[in-house]
Amino acid sequence: MNSELSIDVVNKIKTLKSDSGTHSPSIDTILNECPELKIGVDACFLSNPYATDLFMKCLHEDLIDNNKLRDVLEFYPPQNREVAKYISKAINVDYKKIFVGNGAIEIIQGILHNFVAKKICIISPTFSSYYEFVKDDIEIVYFPLLKEEEYLLDPKKYVDFIKKEKPDTIAIINPNNPNGGYLKQEDFLYILSSLREVTNVIIDESFIHFAYEDIELSQITSEELTDTYSNLIIVKSMSKDFGIAGLRAGYAVMNADKVDKLLKNGYLWNVSGLTNYFFKVYSEKEFIDKYDIERKKYIMNTLMFLNELKNIPGIKVYPSRANFALVEIENGMTSFDFTISLLIKYGIYVRDCSDKIGLDGQFVRIASRSFEENLLIIKAMKELLCEK
Amino acid sequence: MNSELSIDVVNKIKTLKSDSGTHSPSIDTILNECPELKIGVDACFLSNPYATDLFMKCLHEDLIDNNKLRDVLEFYPPQNREVAKYISKAINVDYKKIFVGNGAIEIIQGILHNFVAKKICIISPTFSSYYEFVKDDIEIVYFPLLKEEEYLLDPKKYVDFIKKEKPDTIAIINPNNPNGGYLKQEDFLYILSSLREVTNVIIDESFIHFAYEDIELSQITSEELTDTYSNLIIVKSMSKDFGIAGLRAGYAVMNADKVDKLLKNGYLWNVSGLTNYFFKVYSEKEFIDKYDIERKKYIMNTLMFLNELKNIPGIKVYPSRANFALVEIENGMTSFDFTISLLIKYGIYVRDCSDKIGLDGQFVRIASRSFEENLLIIKAMKELLCEK
Repeated sequence: MNSELSIDVVNKIKTLKSDSGTHSPSIDTILNECPELKIGVDACFLSNPYATDLFMKCLHEDLIDNNKLRDVLEFYPPQNREVAKYISKAINVDYKKIFVGNGAIEIIQGILHNFVAKKICIISPTFSSYYEFVKDDIEIVYFPLLKEEEYLLDPKKYVDFIKKEKPDTIAIINPNNPNGGYLKQEDFLYILSSLREVTNVIIDESFIHFAYEDIELSQITSEELTDTYSNLIIVKSMSKDFGIAGLRAGYAVMNADKVDKLLKNGYLWNVSGLTNYFFKVYSEKEFIDKYDIERKKYIMNTLMFLNELKNIPGIKVYPSRANFALVEIENGMTSFDFTISLLIKYGIYVRDCSDKIGLDGQFVRIASRSFEENLLIIKAMKELLCEK
Repeated sequence: MNSELSIDVVNKIKTLKSDSGTHSPSIDTILNECPELKIGVDACFLSNPYATDLFMKCLHEDLIDNNKLRDVLEFYPPQNREVAKYISKAINVDYKKIFVGNGAIEIIQGILHNFVAKKICIISPTFSSYYEFVKDDIEIVYFPLLKEEEYLLDPKKYVDFIKKEKPDTIAIINPNNPNGGYLKQEDFLYILSSLREVTNVIIDESFIHFAYEDIELSQITSEELTDTYSNLIIVKSMSKDFGIAGLRAGYAVMNADKVDKLLKNGYLWNVSGLTNYFFKVYSEKEFIDKYDIERKKYIMNTLMFLNELKNIPGIKVYPSRANFALVEIENGMTSFDFTISLLIKYGIYVRDCSDKIGLDGQFVRIASRSFEENLLIIKAMKELLCEK
């Protein structure tokens, strides 16, 4: 099969991948270098496309159709605390406890650089910035998720590990990236109440809108727990659930003293005028009601996608309550060959996980996209894996 | 006159101003709190409106009219180094020496938090973030610009001061904010060659596109000096000259090792998809040729504005080669009363400088805007100052 692939494209992708560190090069970057490629489905990208539709509709009505976009691009956006007031209205938390970020990634950087004292515990595998952004003089200890436990977090084992290792900071992504493993609220509360002595408990809920615990698919929120647990820091990306990664929008809820510390010498105008507009819309009930319909539609879509994936031979799909699946290639193909074949032959871009610390085998991460795109992914994977 | 002003609005503005620290609350923030106000001219805001016109035209042609905006908002932007390649093309500097910032303010924060070792010299008066963002354990020494020297920097005195004080980092804004005082290239080179022992020489050229040394109004560029002076860090906001403050875009040129250090544990996706689009346009000669026409038109506009300001009685206008003027109110009015009167009676918003360290008297900073807006400012100021 490799003979069919353009060696040139393969080499270019290898270089781009190596230049991007432990992240995937963006589609924009790939197409700049390989204009001969046709990418139809970006299943590397973890985002609800129906929410993007909704946001684009609002943007057209509020700013584009009436020529108000210029004001948003020309003038300085409000300062951090002013933007926080919109979020405060949306999530019903005092704005003094809200730190607004230029994407969750800026918040992760800010927390790691300002609050970690000596030692941090990171779960493995997880989103690489949580260990890569840690400063050189900080010790990192990894809590390994095990293949034989399907990479799910065992709360009891985790608490015992933290009590033994005594890090000042711990970080959990819930649901976790790259596997989508979900920690139930009950288990999350057990961890919180058991680990009051930890100075910073970071919970990254960037994918929480895709998780659910009841058949109504009700949205799970933990922000109010920051009142009871002053060590809790909730990090929230808006990129995934609202489908606006290009906008750069995120926030964190934490103790007001911590927000003061961050704003004392930085983060003055750290979000754009368009991001401020997004948070304004986010604070409006009418928008959130519409959003919740798109959220549930996408969750059901994803459920069907995960079920279909599980029926494809030659792969194993790990349990996920996020909008993606961790897939192990078990037919002898490498994850790089699988990824590049899907890209070149089918124009489908998935995440090769060969660079992920803590995964033992050939893994890719595949995002759920629109209903139609998910069908294309399923068809292409069936063809690719059965052809071999 | 005060009886005519709404006490309620005055009090709200006082509170907003106090909440905004040493910056002005944005128009958005003011209008949220005081919807009864009509702000027609934002002369607090230092930006070329003709450049905004040009950018909006490109944005419509490239992204809005053909429905490509969605891609820019939905997908992740390229990583820092990829965006740097566009800037590299525009300014002809190796991309490894370019750090892309979410506005110059993020770069200032990054430099101050990562490179300053023990002691920094700040010029006074200057842009407040240069001292406010400095970490607690760093010593700040101020080089005062003197009223009797019209707040202009004396290169010889400055070099002597630095040689005596021995800071590891120095910062100069050229032209300086809030007065617009300009340091000629000849003097800048004298400072650079005299202070090779300083570890970090920060030159903030956020207003340099408004300065000129010849009658062709040629653009002044210093980026190539970073090859000769490895301690030189040039900081560049795009907000002012390109009229896109809401977008958040800036860059810095510095030693490649320093860029590596910043990117090692942060700043991964720190600019938005729209900012990436801006830098792409910025790298295109066709755009820059058009921009240069708008730049020169605005400089001539500003020259006329500054000349007219100088003819108004009761004020003193300090020398400026930027797109604004530092104005001292000499008729007994306070800068707050002047600012609030212009705002409430004429809908013109200027910068009250009463919070600026290093200014001795009643000062406001007034931006040059479009030709028509500048006329409104001049007329309003004449009326206000003659009425007294």
